[in-house]
Amino acid sequence: MSHTVRSFCCLDKDKPGWKDVTLPEMGPLDAILKPIAMCPCTSDVHIVELNMYGECTLGHEVVGEIVEVGSMVKDFKPGDKVLVPAVTPDWNAALSQGGFAQHGTGYAEGFKFSHSKPGVFAELFHVNDADANLAHLPENMDLKAALMCGDMMTTGFYGAELAQIEYGDRVCVIGIGPVGLMAVRACAIGGASEIYAVGSRPNCQQIAKEYGATHIINYKNGDIVEQVRKLTNGEGVDKVIIAGGDVGIISQGIAMTHPGGIVANVAVVGGEPNVPIPINAIGWGLGLSDISIVGGLCPGGRRRLERMARLITSGRVDPTRLTNLVFTGFDKIEDAFEKMWHKPADLIKPVVIC
Amino acid sequence: MSHTVRSFCCLDKDKPGWKDVTLPEMGPLDAILKPIAMCPCTSDVHIVELNMYGECTLGHEVVGEIVEVGSMVKDFKPGDKVLVPAVTPDWNAALSQGGFAQHGTGYAEGFKFSHSKPGVFAELFHVNDADANLAHLPENMDLKAALMCGDMMTTGFYGAELAQIEYGDRVCVIGIGPVGLMAVRACAIGGASEIYAVGSRPNCQQIAKEYGATHIINYKNGDIVEQVRKLTNGEGVDKVIIAGGDVGIISQGIAMTHPGGIVANVAVVGGEPNVPIPINAIGWGLGLSDISIVGGLCPGGRRRLERMARLITSGRVDPTRLTNLVFTGFDKIEDAFEKMWHKPADLIKPVVIC
Amino acid sequence: MSHTVRSFCCLDKDKPGWKDVTLPEMGPLDAILKPIAMCPCTSDVHIVELNMYGECTLGHEVVGEIVEVGSMVKDFKPGDKVLVPAVTPDWNAALSQGGFAQHGTGYAEGFKFSHSKPGVFAELFHVNDADANLAHLPENMDLKAALMCGDMMTTGFYGAELAQIEYGDRVCVIGIGPVGLMAVRACAIGGASEIYAVGSRPNCQQIAKEYGATHIINYKNGDIVEQVRKLTNGEGVDKVIIAGGDVGIISQGIAMTHPGGIVANVAVVGGEPNVPIPINAIGWGLGLSDISIVGGLCPGGRRRLERMARLITSGRVDPTRLTNLVFTGFDKIEDAFEKMWHKPADLIKPVVIC
Amino acid sequence: MSHTVRSFCCLDKDKPGWKDVTLPEMGPLDAILKPIAMCPCTSDVHIVELNMYGECTLGHEVVGEIVEVGSMVKDFKPGDKVLVPAVTPDWNAALSQGGFAQHGTGYAEGFKFSHSKPGVFAELFHVNDADANLAHLPENMDLKAALMCGDMMTTGFYGAELAQIEYGDRVCVIGIGPVGLMAVRACAIGGASEIYAVGSRPNCQQIAKEYGATHIINYKNGDIVEQVRKLTNGEGVDKVIIAGGDVGIISQGIAMTHPGGIVANVAVVGGEPNVPIPINAIGWGLGLSDISIVGGLCPGGRRRLERMARLITSGRVDPTRLTNLVFTGFDKIEDAFEKMWHKPADLIKPVVIC
Repeated sequence: MSHTVRSFCCLDKDKPGWKDVTLPEMGPLDAILKPIAMCPCTSDVHIVELNMYGECTLGHEVVGEIVEVGSMVKDFKPGDKVLVPAVTPDWNAALSQGGFAQHGTGYAEGFKFSHSKPGVFAELFHVNDADANLAHLPENMDLKAALMCGDMMTTGFYGAELAQIEYGDRVCVIGIGPVGLMAVRACAIGGASEIYAVGSRPNCQQIAKEYGATHIINYKNGDIVEQVRKLTNGEGVDKVIIAGGDVGIISQGIAMTHPGGIVANVAVVGGEPNVPIPINAIGWGLGLSDISIVGGLCPGGRRRLERMARLITSGRVDPTRLTNLVFTGFDKIEDAFEKMWHKPADLIKPVVIC
Repeated sequence: MSHTVRSFCCLDKDKPGWKDVTLPEMGPLDAILKPIAMCPCTSDVHIVELNMYGECTLGHEVVGEIVEVGSMVKDFKPGDKVLVPAVTPDWNAALSQGGFAQHGTGYAEGFKFSHSKPGVFAELFHVNDADANLAHLPENMDLKAALMCGDMMTTGFYGAELAQIEYGDRVCVIGIGPVGLMAVRACAIGGASEIYAVGSRPNCQQIAKEYGATHIINYKNGDIVEQVRKLTNGEGVDKVIIAGGDVGIISQGIAMTHPGGIVANVAVVGGEPNVPIPINAIGWGLGLSDISIVGGLCPGGRRRLERMARLITSGRVDPTRLTNLVFTGFDKIEDAFEKMWHKPADLIKPVVIC
Repeated sequence: MSHTVRSFCCLDKDKPGWKDVTLPEMGPLDAILKPIAMCPCTSDVHIVELNMYGECTLGHEVVGEIVEVGSMVKDFKPGDKVLVPAVTPDWNAALSQGGFAQHGTGYAEGFKFSHSKPGVFAELFHVNDADANLAHLPENMDLKAALMCGDMMTTGFYGAELAQIEYGDRVCVIGIGPVGLMAVRACAIGGASEIYAVGSRPNCQQIAKEYGATHIINYKNGDIVEQVRKLTNGEGVDKVIIAGGDVGIISQGIAMTHPGGIVANVAVVGGEPNVPIPINAIGWGLGLSDISIVGGLCPGGRRRLERMARLITSGRVDPTRLTNLVFTGFDKIEDAFEKMWHKPADLIKPVVIC
Repeated sequence: MSHTVRSFCCLDKDKPGWKDVTLPEMGPLDAILKPIAMCPCTSDVHIVELNMYGECTLGHEVVGEIVEVGSMVKDFKPGDKVLVPAVTPDWNAALSQGGFAQHGTGYAEGFKFSHSKPGVFAELFHVNDADANLAHLPENMDLKAALMCGDMMTTGFYGAELAQIEYGDRVCVIGIGPVGLMAVRACAIGGASEIYAVGSRPNCQQIAKEYGATHIINYKNGDIVEQVRKLTNGEGVDKVIIAGGDVGIISQGIAMTHPGGIVANVAVVGGEPNVPIPINAIGWGLGLSDISIVGGLCPGGRRRLERMARLITSGRVDPTRLTNLVFTGFDKIEDAFEKMWHKPADLIKPVVIC
């Protein structure tokens, strides 16, 4: 028996709104949840602005309560409060076995909400393989912190993982929206020494410093490559994490990195058909610089979510600095989305407590 | 022309004392330094108690000032104040090229002080390949912090590197003397979530907490394996770092680690001819547990030293919590050694400012 | 509805025999297969000799034909011929998500046959998560080769993976039974230069050479550590793979390895409560040698199996040199087991074509 | 005292010729050698065609005999015959300590011949840090094989290392000139299963097959991406190694690789200011495909050279299939260069035995 539920959707290009949608049938490993806290993401805005998937239910950042579970689910029961990741892989797929569960059955197919099934901005939502993709909400965890685990935090931390931060690394984090700020924190508790955070919004600069950035770089003060090169005595940084910017930002990342370094992207790169990689010496060095360029989607799933949560409960990370606008009541997701769409200058993440 | 200098030595078993020694000749890549701060190490005590190398000059923890440099030295000149690592490798040796400079020309042969040449507790001391093994003392760095870079900090951090700490790992650090405390800090800024620090001395427990330990485990309260298993709901930790204990401690480390985990040793393991690895299921699992057992000597050299220093100047680490007894005057190394030998309960590292 | 099938079992200590057993119920992801080729393993002999699990159906090396599939199985249907791995993990378990599917729900729990459910020496056998754990039998693949994929080959190759073979490594493979011979081949097509194969049986020595061993070392000619040290001009090897021997063999492996090397075990280590790790300089070097000691169980599953098969179909590996005794008819598994138990000197793997 | 020697040079754009040049002074770690076998490289041709470095002595592929050694050289003496790598790093530089000796003091600065000092096509040539950068010529090694160790072989193998070949990988090698052919061999003895070699010259196709390519792909038969996708049932390969082609080849490499794969470049990429990276789904997937793009210069030095040599002496690699034109007499380097410049269709590497 499937559920038909009221949900907040992309109805058409630039047209968000409410609609009843039918959830996929719950298989023996799956669960049906209701949201207890929700949060819109910049990518929800993109879905609406670009009408990326046609009509679809929005939302993939949520904390939920279990309503029903499939017959083979072992670790969760109705009433349990849970963390939910944006990426809920098919763990038994080929590429999942190969370490890339986010692409288990194909490129980015671990990211199912809004893409291959309705998103979470709905009275009820469906999660595949509940035992493998949900995590119990730790006692006493702030719901706003819990909301950040499944996408903003895990994505920012993935940037630091792709960049393979080592003790003493000098790292530049380009873009200090919510993902970039989490990447700054990931670097600070991941071994980096100096962290150069690139961004211009004062409140984000302030949070970047609290999270561990040692230097703030504002592109309004001149070329960011030159600023970084100057701070590193011309050497360039060890690693760059890209969490925002247009396609050209990757070439800037390369230009500020020394040979053997890594440029790691976790932002959605678009707007042009190609990312240009400069081949000059202060660049990719004729393809011989040993600078690695990598960009990826966070792997998702339960184990990773539990690890993110443990970083919060052990006091290493406080993501609530990001959630600086709070609404109350399920229906307020409409207002929260509106705020995310036509962003006030100081908004980072608006959340809805249902 | 070689130098003959007054130095504090192991003269015989249990017999430290002063003696004139002759330094190796300074080659074109080398430098002669004088100490400006020094610190005895537990291994200096072992050298004396076990008469490990016969008569030899003690000491490998030092901050120095350049007195002379060889003709090919480029980056240092007399008068420069420098950090000095305990391990000063031959960087062009075969195993150095293979990533193990500490063993470049053979097992542990990168560790030269007291072993293959006089140590640093002397009016002057010799450093091979100055450009590759020294680092400029950062402006405003506390000399006590600077003193910790070259051995205590880098060794503790090496423990965390061997353990390949990942975001969210639960880690047990066994032994919270100076190296263990640095390992705790390395875990806390290296991605660990919960850190279980095993030790019984109250001041070290206090510093462990300040450095980021989330739980203190005292062996006086029962079997440490059981305590760790209980804290992890029976799962065991992801990683163990061993920074103290007898040969049996490694089997305890294995027994508290889950399959696929890592047990990393940075303590000198001795007293028995063999380390016993238990083969039962809660152990090495008939050799099939996928638990890696590794123990190593910190790699040393300039690049690593600069990275340690940068972790201090960027505020990630403050090693001066370790240096809780300060003497003034070169000759006081004798008193500092005496304290290290017959340790008062609350002593961590005694330092001498020359 | 469960199946009750005639199966070849351990009935008691030293007492193999036939018995009817009931298979686990087939879940929606599972499959029921019948064997088309089977092979006993030394571990089947251990199960009988030590009465390790009480009464249980033996066997985990098999090529099968699908008889039934669960409702959610997508890639297989009755009549399909398939490769089956010895290790059939729960891919959605926590440690599976962490890269150790063989220990997904606990130590070695991915190894289910004979342990947590009946083995494959039966008219029918059960495989969990068919899509994730079976692989289509490639057209034209020799059944004897196919039989080797799921345990002997994948285990031998895992030894080389644990040893992290790099181009030009000198490797010693200790033990050249079927797993060791596959490890030799894995080294030869995995980048090793000189391969020292330790074993005394002439036919295995011959196959080791065909598989790429450059030197044969016979313990009857003297201490194997000395022989290896001599061949490497005293340097020691880069890596050791242990595929046989008693608990003392690991200390010999360490003693023939240079600092920074790896000793990788894929044999079942038993007979004593502890593996002794020597701490002298030609050994684990007081725990500071940077020699890694690791032992593991092959991860199993479909993706890995397909990769093993592709190494055969692309001509890199021919495992049929191992299968030097062939029986015909399902019931002959009793004779094959008897041969494996009371091994003639030149037997490597006896196989049964059903 | 410096040497002035007759050498074969780039005199101006498109103007090779002979000239007397003065060698750098021999320092205490250095050596002066005379060539006993030499070989021009495509990059020598580029130097002349593009007048890349102005007037300079050509050549970096050589087998030499020691003529003089510095006072601190330990392992070599006049008369010793030696292998010489194209890249002769400063092993004590910062990035050398960090694992990138080829860029030790800056981008590609480990590559000194023709760039920062005269090349090897001279009566005598200079090698820095002889103990760290030369290797004894193994007894009985064919001079033509020996000549290939220091650049063609080590560069091709570096491609496979950058691509992190794992057992069973399907790999596409684009470009089967000498470096690409060595990359094919590296894959075949490095764990690859299917190897798709892209090239159109019949003799190179033939050698690719002998070296282990399982499929030959000719761009004359259609789009190579489509050909590779078809051979892999639409999945794409695990890894791509690029050893030739224009800037657009990298985007083709990405388009034939599945998410999580690696595209590794070891060719000199030039001719355009930027390498375009396509961002569509069959491409870099909006920067989220987890496809790593890396391009590097082979690290060089003695240890690596000895490992390459050991792969030859142990029979894993026979690089003499590449050296299909042999001249005799030092002066014939002029003819060999001419052949490399205006390449006959079947020429791979012309060599000069002095």
